[in-house]
Amino acid sequence: MRIVFSLGDPHGIGPEIILKGFLELQKSGHRFAVAGSYRVLEHYRQALGLPIELERVEDARALEHLPSCSCGVLPVLSVAEPLSIEPGTVTAEAGSIAMQSVKAAAELCRNGQFDALVTAPLHKESLALAGCPDSGHTGMLGRMFSVPSPIMLFADRVSGLKVALLTIHEPLERVPLLVRKTDIDRFLLRLARCLETDFGLEHPAVAVLGLNPHASDGGIMGREEEELIRPAIQRLQQRMHIEGPFPADGFFGARMQSRFDVVLAMYHDQGLLPFKVLAFHSGVNVTLGLPIVRTSPDHGTGFDRAGKGTASAESLHEATLLAATIAENRKKKTGPPL
Amino acid sequence: MRIVFSLGDPHGIGPEIILKGFLELQKSGHRFAVAGSYRVLEHYRQALGLPIELERVEDARALEHLPSCSCGVLPVLSVAEPLSIEPGTVTAEAGSIAMQSVKAAAELCRNGQFDALVTAPLHKESLALAGCPDSGHTGMLGRMFSVPSPIMLFADRVSGLKVALLTIHEPLERVPLLVRKTDIDRFLLRLARCLETDFGLEHPAVAVLGLNPHASDGGIMGREEEELIRPAIQRLQQRMHIEGPFPADGFFGARMQSRFDVVLAMYHDQGLLPFKVLAFHSGVNVTLGLPIVRTSPDHGTGFDRAGKGTASAESLHEATLLAATIAENRKKKTGPPL
Repeated sequence: MRIVFSLGDPHGIGPEIILKGFLELQKSGHRFAVAGSYRVLEHYRQALGLPIELERVEDARALEHLPSCSCGVLPVLSVAEPLSIEPGTVTAEAGSIAMQSVKAAAELCRNGQFDALVTAPLHKESLALAGCPDSGHTGMLGRMFSVPSPIMLFADRVSGLKVALLTIHEPLERVPLLVRKTDIDRFLLRLARCLETDFGLEHPAVAVLGLNPHASDGGIMGREEEELIRPAIQRLQQRMHIEGPFPADGFFGARMQSRFDVVLAMYHDQGLLPFKVLAFHSGVNVTLGLPIVRTSPDHGTGFDRAGKGTASAESLHEATLLAATIAENRKKKTGPPL
Repeated sequence: MRIVFSLGDPHGIGPEIILKGFLELQKSGHRFAVAGSYRVLEHYRQALGLPIELERVEDARALEHLPSCSCGVLPVLSVAEPLSIEPGTVTAEAGSIAMQSVKAAAELCRNGQFDALVTAPLHKESLALAGCPDSGHTGMLGRMFSVPSPIMLFADRVSGLKVALLTIHEPLERVPLLVRKTDIDRFLLRLARCLETDFGLEHPAVAVLGLNPHASDGGIMGREEEELIRPAIQRLQQRMHIEGPFPADGFFGARMQSRFDVVLAMYHDQGLLPFKVLAFHSGVNVTLGLPIVRTSPDHGTGFDRAGKGTASAESLHEATLLAATIAENRKKKTGPPL
């Protein structure tokens, strides 16, 4: 598969883990390029002393004929170049370069030059300073591809855990309102379909967590379970394998996730808290429902560690392998090109 | 120490784990009794075939002179007796007996006949049917002792983890409002004082989690961190060892809890999700800030397993040992009786 990395925030650990990840993955049989900044990558390459050569590319068309073996050379499409590089610092310039990198890399997948996009982490404050209306990749890519609600999924190959989020980067006070406004039936049908297409799962088993403590204990603490979530699950049980709403706190403690292919959490921390405990280094973030394949490591920009050479590329490594697998599964579904 | 168990819901696993726990703990040097129903305990004792004798007690004064060795005999103060026993069933009668048991057991601690209360699990729906205005022990005991906001803490001896909750059994939509209404400074000072008194920790190190995803990423997703939580922490740093607000999802994944004596979560699932993953069988629920010592197992009534003899008494066992330790710590602080 042909995989393109977006740079991530130039002041975070993104460029470092791309370089480290490429060093490990260059003999995987896949082909790689980065859309971002040559200068940024060269800065970190030198600082880390990595045995990689970066090939600066100015025109995306030059990426059409990637050699079958990378042989230590990583092509870098120069999308934007910074005036300064200051690891660990929030700047509008860094946010702007990060944003342009994602757009350019996604474009390379849309036009078929690449099979999958692996994104390095963005910094929300830098993006905001750069005037970006989105708080992260999922919103940015959703807008780019006119998909109003892409599904954010976290997958861990090691534990087998997959967690999807009904609501994503929202202030907690907006979550109950958003849950009530969401068409839960439609969301769950889309989720199941994406798991079939992207993960090759026939009839995936879906667990749904409650919104309120103890899944409201029969309506005593909150109304959403009895009024919305349980009726949706009951309607869908005719069409798919689905159970819930489960009290979220006991679900993972009792290891109930092992009975399901995916767990749907109602909000960010409800899904990510257990996911990061159970899969901290090897977790992968996947955006489902887009016309392109997109994964990313499940961690942030790590500004406190940026430029120190200590970042782990494990999650990016896993994200890259999963992106390749999803791209293969999609090709199987659509069949070989005529 | 003299420890009294409240029965818990007669239709849940409470009576079973009390009997199993007593069987293991009777030679611990502590003395035990149950406040609840003789008939309920005898029902489960016979069903389980446990080598225990139950001694029915009608007047609490008879509990004043417990023998120093239990020798297989567990005194049961008959507070209320049911007409029927139906494991796994929600009934008003069960809720009423459970509620009366807690009150009687707490009274035995208030008047000094016992040193600590260990409560078996309540069922919120049964309580509601019985007309109980509280959704659980913390509220019930708070009202009984005129402590408006007891602190709910979860402790695990095995992992060393302790998690306190700023808000407890609340619908998720009320949480942000309640966080904004809470005097966070005062809560944290009380928490630290309770840890000193009950756990013998001098200058406990406290970590505070953010309310919103990523602790709001500098105010981008929610305002509570920058407007309330961070200023409170900064004020308190002059007086105690405290850090935060931390993004909740990454905190436990990065094992940061090992640097702190306690982690303050903003709401139920934020604290209980990681706690139950990290300490499912050995976790203990402690109510801080009451004049009496109270602990309980950190699981529910287990209606699906009630009456089957398969429930684990491990958490109740841990709760009993921790109750005894807290009672000893409190006696040390107040000094020996004159």
